[in-house]
Parts: sequence; C-alpha cells; structure tokens
Amino acid sequence: MRYLTEADIEALAVGAAILGTGGGGNPYIGKLRCLQELRRGKPVALIGLEELDDDALVVPIGGIGAPIVGIEKLEEGHEGVRALRALEEFYGRRIDALISAEIGGGNALEPIITAAIAGLPVVDGDGMGRAFPEMQMTTFSIYGHPSTPAALADERGNVVIFQHAVSEPWFERLARSAVVTMGGTAIGAEAPMPGAYAKRAAVPGTVTQAIRLGNLVLDANREHGSAIPLICAAEQGRHLIDAKIVGLKRHLKGGFAVGEIALEGIDAHTGSRAHVVFQNEFLSFERDGTTEVSVPDLIVILDVDTGHAITTEVLRYGQRVAVLALPCHPLLRTPQALAVVGPQAFGLEGITFRPLPRN
Amino acid sequence: MRYLTEADIEALAVGAAILGTGGGGNPYIGKLRCLQELRRGKPVALIGLEELDDDALVVPIGGIGAPIVGIEKLEEGHEGVRALRALEEFYGRRIDALISAEIGGGNALEPIITAAIAGLPVVDGDGMGRAFPEMQMTTFSIYGHPSTPAALADERGNVVIFQHAVSEPWFERLARSAVVTMGGTAIGAEAPMPGAYAKRAAVPGTVTQAIRLGNLVLDANREHGSAIPLICAAEQGRHLIDAKIVGLKRHLKGGFAVGEIALEGIDAHTGSRAHVVFQNEFLSFERDGTTEVSVPDLIVILDVDTGHAITTEVLRYGQRVAVLALPCHPLLRTPQALAVVGPQAFGLEGITFRPLPRN
Repeated sequence: MRYLTEADIEALAVGAAILGTGGGGNPYIGKLRCLQELRRGKPVALIGLEELDDDALVVPIGGIGAPIVGIEKLEEGHEGVRALRALEEFYGRRIDALISAEIGGGNALEPIITAAIAGLPVVDGDGMGRAFPEMQMTTFSIYGHPSTPAALADERGNVVIFQHAVSEPWFERLARSAVVTMGGTAIGAEAPMPGAYAKRAAVPGTVTQAIRLGNLVLDANREHGSAIPLICAAEQGRHLIDAKIVGLKRHLKGGFAVGEIALEGIDAHTGSRAHVVFQNEFLSFERDGTTEVSVPDLIVILDVDTGHAITTEVLRYGQRVAVLALPCHPLLRTPQALAVVGPQAFGLEGITFRPLPRN
Repeated sequence: MRYLTEADIEALAVGAAILGTGGGGNPYIGKLRCLQELRRGKPVALIGLEELDDDALVVPIGGIGAPIVGIEKLEEGHEGVRALRALEEFYGRRIDALISAEIGGGNALEPIITAAIAGLPVVDGDGMGRAFPEMQMTTFSIYGHPSTPAALADERGNVVIFQHAVSEPWFERLARSAVVTMGGTAIGAEAPMPGAYAKRAAVPGTVTQAIRLGNLVLDANREHGSAIPLICAAEQGRHLIDAKIVGLKRHLKGGFAVGEIALEGIDAHTGSRAHVVFQNEFLSFERDGTTEVSVPDLIVILDVDTGHAITTEVLRYGQRVAVLALPCHPLLRTPQALAVVGPQAFGLEGITFRPLPRN
C-alpha cells in the first residue's frame, strides 16, 4: 500500500492515455479533478490485489460514453460517488475498495476521484489493461462476474440502477441508451465483486504500469529525448510506423466515436500507406493491404515529437504520429476473452487475431 | 370491495378502449391474460380509494411504449410482477395495492394481471381518467408525488430501476429510451404512494366507470342498438361527427405512434372536413378550420356501427367512424394539470383548451 502523490497523478494521466489506445477519454480534466482532491487533503491509497481481503467488496468505476462529448460536457464531480452510494443502498452494505473498469484514458482517474471523496482505497489493476468501447469488455465480465446490478449517474443528479440484465450485451445496450439520453457521457459503478474474484480476474498492476509509462514520457521530455524506444522496450512493443495523418473519417454513432485514419509514412517509412479503424479505441492497423495488429493487442498513436498519446477525439488531418503496437495481457488472449474483445466482436470480418510476441 | 368477474373483465376491456382515446394499447391481449389468471383461480379484489389505509403503499403499474409494437411483441406475462418485486426489494417493504397509471386501453388491465399473480387488490381509480402518451402525465406526478424510484421490466427478464430523476420529464426521457432499447414496449411500476395521497390525487372510480361504459356497448350490441347516444348521456359527452377516414399519416417517432387523421363527414355531416392529430392518443379535433376539442378532454373514435373504440394502431383508410368528445375529470383541468397535459404540453401551438361543459 502506498499513497498516490501529485507526481503519480501527473504521470498516470500521461501513461493512461497511452494505454487508452485512443479511447477511454482524454485524461486531462480527470487529472485536474484528482489533483484538486489531493490538494484538499484527501489522500488516496493504492493497494495491490494481494492486499484485498477475499470477502472485501470491490466496485469497478468508470466513465461511459463518447469521449468527444466529455470535452464540452464536463462532469459535475460527484457522479461516481452518487453511483457508488446507489449501489451501497441497493446492497445494504458498504463498499471496501474501488478499481478501474478500464485503465486506459480518463477512466484511470475516475475511481481515484471517487475514492478521494469517499475515503476508499484504489486497487492497482483494472478490467482491461487498456481501454475498450463496450461495457461487457472487461475481464471481470468475461470471466463470469455479471456487471449488474450496476448504477449510472449523470451530472444533473439522475441515477439509474440496472438491477438485472439477462446478458452482458443487454447491460451494454441498456446502459448505452441511458448514457445517450443523459447527453453522451455518465459515470457507472458496476456490481461489487469479492476480493477473491478480483485477484483472479483483474489485470494486475496496471495503475503502476501506467504511472511508469507516463514517467518514461515525462522524463524523456525533460531530457529532450524520445520516449518511443523506451516505451517499446518497457512493454515489449513494436514501433510500427512514423506517419502523417492524410485522411480522417470520424462520426458519432450510437454513442460511439467511430471512423478510420489514413496514414502516409514519413522518414524511414516514406511511401507506406496504412489505415487504422477505430470505435472509441483503435481496433486494427493495416499496412499495404495486410492487417498487422488488431484488438485485443494495443495500437497506440503518439505525437511523434513529444511521445504523448493522441486520443481519438483530438486526431486531426496533418498530425505527425508514431504508431506503436503493445501486446495485451494474457487474460485478454484466451478463447473466452477473444469472443468478447477479438476482431470479430467489433465486426472486423476476415481479420484473425495474431498475438504480438510477449515473453 | 368486490371481486372482479369475467364479465367485468370483458366490459372493462371495451370501456377502457373508449377511455383510451386511441391509445393505452389495445386491451385485447391484456383481457385474455386477465381471464386466464381468473380462471386459474386467482381472484382480484377491486377496492375503493376510501378503503385504502392512509399509510398503505400503492403502486401504479402500466405498459410503456408504442401500442403498435405490442401487437407483435407479446408480453411474457410476469413483467409487472418483476417490476413490482424490484420496487419491494429496493424499498425493503411489501406493497399493499396496485392502481392503474392510466385507465385507458390495455393499461386498465395491466395492474389486474399483476394483482392476480401477486395476490394484491386493485384500486378503483387511476392517474389519468383516460390515456396519455408520457409518463409525467399522471395526476400522481402532477400533484407532487415523484414517479421515481420506478422499475421497468421487459419480457426477457431485464429490470431497470430509475432510482432518482431530477424531474418528471427526465424520468420520462430515461424510461422512454430504456423502453425503446427493450424493443418498444415494457411494463413499469412507479414509486409507491401512501394511501392518503392516492385518495387526494387519483382520478376516482375509473375502473367502475370503464366497466359501465363497456357494458353500455356490449348491451347495445346484443340489442342491435347504438351505444353512441348512451355513452354521450352517461359521460356528458358530445357526438361530434360521423365520418369516413379519407387520409391517415402514422409513423413511429421516439417510441411514439404520431400522426394525423383526415375525416370527411357522412350522413348528417356530409361535406364537413375534420382532422384529428395524435401522439399515441388523440390530441385535438379540428373541423372546418376551428379546433373544437383538445387535450385533456377526451376525443374518442368509435366504429360507427358497433360502438367499439378504434385504437391508433388499427386506424385505416376508409373506416367509418363516430367521433365523440367527453369532458375530462376536474383534476386534469387545474392550471397545474394543464401545464402538463394541456395542448401546449404536446406542442399544439395556438390552441387554447376550451373545456367541454361538465356538471
């Protein structure tokens, strides 16, 4: 157990954006909210999965919706607490710890904001080891813990409880339409899981991993070096291409930011043409007609100069980017997991998941 | 208190369709379900508002959605019970009685189905004295009892609880989008109200009223007479026109059946042109350029030969219909009520509500 520092939060925001693979929401506003709570004297303890009591109740917390909406429709700030309290009231029991539903993007910070206000610890781990667009795409759900009863809170004060969904995709559908009605973003708290289950199903150590990644970038920036080779070395990743964005289709569909990026290689890659398809997150990387990387492995787009991640909603024509591929956690590579987060789950027909090498 | 008979249910279905003013769903399937439960030996007691204990908990139950969907997407049958149990679990208290949210159409029968299964009495009254398309349009809500926490159940087993809505229109918006996601229809149970409040805010005696109206029609059918003058006499109504449907626009919009009917007078009314606008229910009746009747008063369209009500979803070109106007209950005519169920609440600009005479 240790307490998160302001420096941790700064690094976490940078690293979480990298693990967000374009999605999970821009962490900037979440970072400011976390720092605000820490400066109000509300410390947040980060605890390892192994520190959880087996019968502790752990609640996954995260934002749901189209990240691009979150840029203009700011959170009121207590959405997560309202969702948490609704679950506690429903269960008639206090919750013991919070965990990220997804470590990628702003959702790395959501449980910390709520933990600070509620005085709870945050678990070092999450349900994805990255970001994914849909609610059933967590290891918690994949390995058998239903997401319902779950609570959803918006910035106005509306709170909806999904008491029972007949399947995880039904939970996703019902929650998604509620989020769209709420204006495109909301904060969700999913069904409490026992500590014993979290130890088995959570992707471990991802808060620490994101902080480490963020520090690589921040340190490289300070020393005027490039973080890109350091990130690849730390994560067993591949540096796929340096390229310019020469085409961008992006629109909101059913509450998601969906689209496609066309890339043209620069420097060592001049002449190469590549495409990245996204649904909130980057789903596949195709070069010269061949799909080289796909979900659940991580496709990361960084500013080629600063090494900072570029999230889907701030992509624009002419940006010079580095595209990296990082292997996902083994928990996302089982047949059970691939059925939910593999290429076919996103409608990417004809693409076979070829796992990146990982020691 | 008395127990509802099979003959009551037959008459209720006919009378509720009349009070449905085109909406509330076709009562036919609900009638069959009620009869099925009665024949299984599950009696349902009808109790007067005055028989309620002041601190009894009364729950309004009804179907939500586009009636036209209900023709093909049948209920599973226990939706209302699941919604009721979800509320009981949420409150940690048993519910004492059920009441119609709206007496009009199939929603007159929904609480009876649930009451039969759950062994509860049904209150002789409702929240509208007719049917209306939106959830905040009940006297319960209008006079200050919030609809939330409310539970919504679909035929698959999904149950959503609207724990808190910041306003009644927000409850309507959130519930409506959930219903659309559930496939267009679902059964809702709204926040339990104390018996003392129901006595003040419910439109009284409307189950009995609907049964009486239904019997007028059934008796007239048996005697080969017309029920239309009898209905007008019983309800202080006006027989506006006998006409042929010469135009019909009807489409689904945001979960509602909306549209317009063009009528051409027959017999005594030959040469008259009239229009009826609807949103699930008939909202306004205009003849030769003048709006003669509007919500909240009841516009009723009957088959000119049988006196049976024609609901919005079975309207068709060429039908010969009688259009009646019946005065609504005084609880719907206060300034508070008109703000929620008057012409402007339905976007009918430029129409002033001119109440039909009522003793």
